[in-house]
Amino acid sequence: MAKPLILVSNDDGITAPGIRTLVKVAMRVGEVLVVAPDGPQSGMGHAITIGNTLRLDRSIAFEDLGVEAYECSGTPADCVKLAKHHVLKDRKPDLVVSGINHGSNSSISVLYSGTMSAAIEAAIEGLPSIGFSLCDYGHEADFSHTEEYVERIIRQALAHRIPENTALNVNFPKKSEEPIKGVKVCRQAHAKWQEEFDERLDPRNRKYFWMTGSFVNFDKGEDTDEWALLHNYVSIVPCQFDMTAHHAIGQINESWEL
Amino acid sequence: MAKPLILVSNDDGITAPGIRTLVKVAMRVGEVLVVAPDGPQSGMGHAITIGNTLRLDRSIAFEDLGVEAYECSGTPADCVKLAKHHVLKDRKPDLVVSGINHGSNSSISVLYSGTMSAAIEAAIEGLPSIGFSLCDYGHEADFSHTEEYVERIIRQALAHRIPENTALNVNFPKKSEEPIKGVKVCRQAHAKWQEEFDERLDPRNRKYFWMTGSFVNFDKGEDTDEWALLHNYVSIVPCQFDMTAHHAIGQINESWEL
Repeated sequence: MAKPLILVSNDDGITAPGIRTLVKVAMRVGEVLVVAPDGPQSGMGHAITIGNTLRLDRSIAFEDLGVEAYECSGTPADCVKLAKHHVLKDRKPDLVVSGINHGSNSSISVLYSGTMSAAIEAAIEGLPSIGFSLCDYGHEADFSHTEEYVERIIRQALAHRIPENTALNVNFPKKSEEPIKGVKVCRQAHAKWQEEFDERLDPRNRKYFWMTGSFVNFDKGEDTDEWALLHNYVSIVPCQFDMTAHHAIGQINESWEL
Repeated sequence: MAKPLILVSNDDGITAPGIRTLVKVAMRVGEVLVVAPDGPQSGMGHAITIGNTLRLDRSIAFEDLGVEAYECSGTPADCVKLAKHHVLKDRKPDLVVSGINHGSNSSISVLYSGTMSAAIEAAIEGLPSIGFSLCDYGHEADFSHTEEYVERIIRQALAHRIPENTALNVNFPKKSEEPIKGVKVCRQAHAKWQEEFDERLDPRNRKYFWMTGSFVNFDKGEDTDEWALLHNYVSIVPCQFDMTAHHAIGQINESWEL
């Protein structure tokens, strides 16, 4: 039987340690093809490149592993579109995986996440997909404790199929002395980033800003991704791309005069 | 009684005709403040600027209307964050409106839309918000038929409140000889963009690509935004920022061995 074909992308760029871990684990399970950004694309959300040109070139980033790879000037969503419609053409990947992101993409961060936009783009294209993220922003982050879980989740996704029109958002606790307790399938916690802007003056005395901020979790539920990660579980949130607040349709129809 | 405070943003940039229409209509209802990108940010999805600096400067774009305005180097989501945390500080807008976008943001386009990311960012911040888009991509698009509906929807939103944790995605049919039939509160149609990549050679003989594509609607429902727009209705989809596919949690828990 042919090995499953696994397409790998990310948002930290093709040379990030996280994608290297993911490629190595994916190679244990299937044939791997990489199409990833040629530089960092963190925080790009579901951006696509429509007013500008795109580059796509063969990359030597995974030559040592014997893996075919392409680097793209665009966003993670662009990478998936180019992989499907240009690189793969008639071949259909059995699974699309993105990451492993250097930093959490739990709860509300899913919306800002380039890692998850690659996975969600794949789901829109009808391809089973998973985004993986580690709650450690460092370039030197230790991914070793994630490998067995990444492999298991990939194998389960291939065996049982991911529910239709859904991409999985998988987050791992930062490596610590306490071993991971297990895996929880969760809902997205209700939380937000509380921004602050660090105002500075450039050498020409013109103002500029750095966005900073802290994460605020409003959600006391024990069925959320935040709860799972805080208690040293791997969190899996199945994400959909239907943004409709179905419950709100009736509310508006009842009271508004349109 | 104090006039309601309405914050206006967009993704086509502060000098686009669409935001000018929106500012003029919003002025009929309340006090207006503009914080918008200093150039086009279409297709930016929910991108934010985290690896780079942000500029925010006073703009003369609406001086003729006596409206305070700021132009920002960042994305639409950045604009809303800067408006709330830096420009407004302790003042809270009664409504955030974004647009009017030059081009449709119906169905799946909501995910790629900078216009809607400004509105959704506001909803995350707990602010009532609406994104407006016209199904006409031209810079010379005629917005005249939208004005009475924009005003009515703004007034209804202020009177009845938008359901919590929800942003409205409002799309208008392109101006035609047939008058608009009315307003429908809808769900997001199940549709996608079928991409093609136009491959070209630059003057140095290196390949590059333009993303092109066509819209494919899989959804035969008559309760969708696509149906409404096709039949010359204004469509309103209430959008949420909880991406959880709640129905899929049970499916995974039942069959996967994690």
